[in-house]
Amino acid sequence: MINWNNLDTLSSYRKLSDVPKIDLVAEMTGENGAKRVKNFSVPMACGLSYNYAAKEVDDTILSNLSELAKEAQLSEKFEALYNGEVINTGEKRLVLHQLTRGQLGEKVMADGVDKREFYVKEQKRIADFANKVHSGEITNAKGEKFTTVVQIGIGGSDLGPRAMYLALENWAKRTGNFKMEAKFISNVDPDDASAVLASTDVEHSIFILVSKSGTTLETLTNESFVTDALKKAGLDQSKHMIAVTSETSPLAKSDSFLEAFFMDDYIGGRYSSTSGVGGAVLSLAFGPDVFAQFLDGAAKEDKLATEADPLKNPAMLDALIGFYERNILGYGSTAVLPYSQGLSRFPAHLQQLDMESNGKSVNRFGEPIDYVTGPIIFGEPGTNGQHSFYQLLHQGTDIIPLQFIGFKNSQLQNDVNIQDSTSQQKLCANVAAQIVAFACGKKDDNLNKNFKGGRPSSIIVGEELNPGSLGALLSHFENKVMFQGFIWNINSFDQEGVQLGKVLAKKVLAHETDGALAEYSKLLNI
Amino acid sequence: MINWNNLDTLSSYRKLSDVPKIDLVAEMTGENGAKRVKNFSVPMACGLSYNYAAKEVDDTILSNLSELAKEAQLSEKFEALYNGEVINTGEKRLVLHQLTRGQLGEKVMADGVDKREFYVKEQKRIADFANKVHSGEITNAKGEKFTTVVQIGIGGSDLGPRAMYLALENWAKRTGNFKMEAKFISNVDPDDASAVLASTDVEHSIFILVSKSGTTLETLTNESFVTDALKKAGLDQSKHMIAVTSETSPLAKSDSFLEAFFMDDYIGGRYSSTSGVGGAVLSLAFGPDVFAQFLDGAAKEDKLATEADPLKNPAMLDALIGFYERNILGYGSTAVLPYSQGLSRFPAHLQQLDMESNGKSVNRFGEPIDYVTGPIIFGEPGTNGQHSFYQLLHQGTDIIPLQFIGFKNSQLQNDVNIQDSTSQQKLCANVAAQIVAFACGKKDDNLNKNFKGGRPSSIIVGEELNPGSLGALLSHFENKVMFQGFIWNINSFDQEGVQLGKVLAKKVLAHETDGALAEYSKLLNI
Repeated sequence: MINWNNLDTLSSYRKLSDVPKIDLVAEMTGENGAKRVKNFSVPMACGLSYNYAAKEVDDTILSNLSELAKEAQLSEKFEALYNGEVINTGEKRLVLHQLTRGQLGEKVMADGVDKREFYVKEQKRIADFANKVHSGEITNAKGEKFTTVVQIGIGGSDLGPRAMYLALENWAKRTGNFKMEAKFISNVDPDDASAVLASTDVEHSIFILVSKSGTTLETLTNESFVTDALKKAGLDQSKHMIAVTSETSPLAKSDSFLEAFFMDDYIGGRYSSTSGVGGAVLSLAFGPDVFAQFLDGAAKEDKLATEADPLKNPAMLDALIGFYERNILGYGSTAVLPYSQGLSRFPAHLQQLDMESNGKSVNRFGEPIDYVTGPIIFGEPGTNGQHSFYQLLHQGTDIIPLQFIGFKNSQLQNDVNIQDSTSQQKLCANVAAQIVAFACGKKDDNLNKNFKGGRPSSIIVGEELNPGSLGALLSHFENKVMFQGFIWNINSFDQEGVQLGKVLAKKVLAHETDGALAEYSKLLNI
Repeated sequence: MINWNNLDTLSSYRKLSDVPKIDLVAEMTGENGAKRVKNFSVPMACGLSYNYAAKEVDDTILSNLSELAKEAQLSEKFEALYNGEVINTGEKRLVLHQLTRGQLGEKVMADGVDKREFYVKEQKRIADFANKVHSGEITNAKGEKFTTVVQIGIGGSDLGPRAMYLALENWAKRTGNFKMEAKFISNVDPDDASAVLASTDVEHSIFILVSKSGTTLETLTNESFVTDALKKAGLDQSKHMIAVTSETSPLAKSDSFLEAFFMDDYIGGRYSSTSGVGGAVLSLAFGPDVFAQFLDGAAKEDKLATEADPLKNPAMLDALIGFYERNILGYGSTAVLPYSQGLSRFPAHLQQLDMESNGKSVNRFGEPIDYVTGPIIFGEPGTNGQHSFYQLLHQGTDIIPLQFIGFKNSQLQNDVNIQDSTSQQKLCANVAAQIVAFACGKKDDNLNKNFKGGRPSSIIVGEELNPGSLGALLSHFENKVMFQGFIWNINSFDQEGVQLGKVLAKKVLAHETDGALAEYSKLLNI
């Protein structure tokens, strides 16, 4: 029996405030610090590990967090989710993105079909299509091979797939898995589509139109840019464009497309990288086998997330520590800092994943809540960030928890040795140094050069950023966000907050405005 | 006589807490809202205007903020700065970036020269060099024209110039000012340099090595990648690489460079876009005339910043409102939301500019302070952000002030008409709609669909993003950050917070570690 209770009704939550806080500087200094780094680590899938030595927790706090995990029934709730309960209560929908990469529990039937079979079938159709494009069985009208794939989509149809593409591009080039270059058009700003198309060889391009509903205004508008470009080049759209959409969308039955691949309402946009939304572009760019490895990494990490003991479940533990920082320690944001150029847009994906999921002020029943929920997420790759905003992270007046990510090896494995170390070693030395600098600080009589320390961080470390570890990384954060939603008793799977802006924008375009909106419309010359 | 006093010693500050807050929903609803949009606007340079109608201020609060501006001597402090006082007290340096684009006050002498003349001389040398490259007077060894320019730099030598390049690329293409493609190498991650070089025609490329000190480890390491690439291609580095550095740096006298252009210690990295750091790459990419227009826009906006009355000084007003939100209303972050694809990396530049300048916990004399300083800055271009993190901005539990930027016209001026409006009109309609949605909200009995409103924003509106308006925009934010530093009585021009990490990273590479640092080094296989 699952109880969906607000956080502030849990006795383990009320107890937590009274548990003594730790002094991170003291804990992380000397041999005790070394011990923490060795002990405060959980294995993840695909050679990754989650190390939380530099977080403001000790055994007492961890045991209280475990108690809260139990009282909040985090494990049971995940089980209900993957067994097909209606977890997205606002929209009355199942939440099935984990099913795109594996079967964690019972068979899930919906719309009269076995949903796992449905997702696998669509993946196979995409794989078959991609193989035919790569082999030259599917070509342009002149019988020439396609060289480029252009994804048209916004939000979840853009950020996740784009971040994943960038994360694997260099790896694929080194390992001989690079099949086609991918580009992305997302913004309704006409300069976005115009610039991408001006630099694209449309005659040798496949365009993927991605919209679950088939009604996303930005995406349909950008389709028109592509339609115009194809027409101008004397090309037939139905030979150059495919759709990824739901079976009930107007795009599903259109004959403007070479093919249509399907997802459904049980996969939210920000959770769709492992569905056809990510599958089509990644399979075309790197081949279906690479996409399968990516899914496999995610499936393995999902499996770890089913573990009831948070000390063996990195996503749950990360969620609990994040909740502790947010609701007990009062920190309002988290910086995501991947020391990997391949992850340059991964923070932007996590920003959507986390902030759109958990930026809510009502519980899952639509009732007001009296505690804070999702934090601000932002970040840039290191070492770039060090030369940008780290000043504030080290010496600013607010404390900002940090999520580092690092890999022992680079992706292209091309390096130079300067001052007795490679660039990859310098990169890794910097992330190690930063964690300790943030945690321990350094006393200086000149307060301008003084570092208080006590700034908490965790790090996910891996061997290499490749399809498997990327899948595991993605799954980790999806499940972390889900567990935090359970803790806060909110619905992490709807996004009603994006509606009002859409409604008002339509009014502006229809010139049905008054008051401030009319004046702003004038100001912007609409 | 200037008094450098802490914020909490100012009587106008103590008074401010007692001034009644406004109810933004009420203020922005109906005819009063329309009146605010018309009245709460200050002209900026180059056709821009700063509109603060949707900020949580009214005439009473504004008059109190004006009083604080006076008591904090914001105008006098700026005057002292541009007349050459040692404003960067920590490093005992003058602060002269405004002098790269104009002379606001008295002649500033330092290092035995008139500094304005020095900057102008370097700009002319760069212009002359760029003209010769464009005309074919300076070519590669085979006498072929250069087509590409690659900037090697990190932090201020990367973020600002990269953001400015992206902001003008499409405009330049439309107006026939596009001379050379620019690329950027910044991260010490070897995958960054390797990937950029793999896609670059090095034989027809000029590389710009940018490091004021000539000792930035990332930049010197990345130079080696380029040196290797040139060698492999059988090319002479001294025909392909120029340096932008200080006259006292080891790079200044090296014969590895075709040319060296100079800046000095009075221009901080994050303020260097209008110096040779931005000047070389932008002049090569778009021509010296375009760079001159950019400087001219910044100079005009600087001039407005000398105005003592904040209601006529957009940078000062923006600074005061931001301070009010941070220190009186208690908001911890600001989102920068440009509705312009060209400004896709402008938020990343502002992130450095603001967070590195004002993320400080001691005053300009190195004494501790008892109030919060610089906020977190993050952002992505709209409408992309709407489909990402706006959910939290609308319905999250924290209030996040917003800085919108919008232009009436697109840069490429290529558009499609769908559902009776162009994409540019849709873009502008969205920004107008969002401001009102955030400010006014909308009541709904279903709390999941309820919008409380009361979320403050301002907008900078312009005709078009071009060199002049971009320069004005840049200057606006530089001066805003400077004024906020004056309000908080901190030194916005040093960055001691980046030092500790560098020191510890060196220890890791030298294997001189113990405790936690030794364990993290093992974890990362260094």
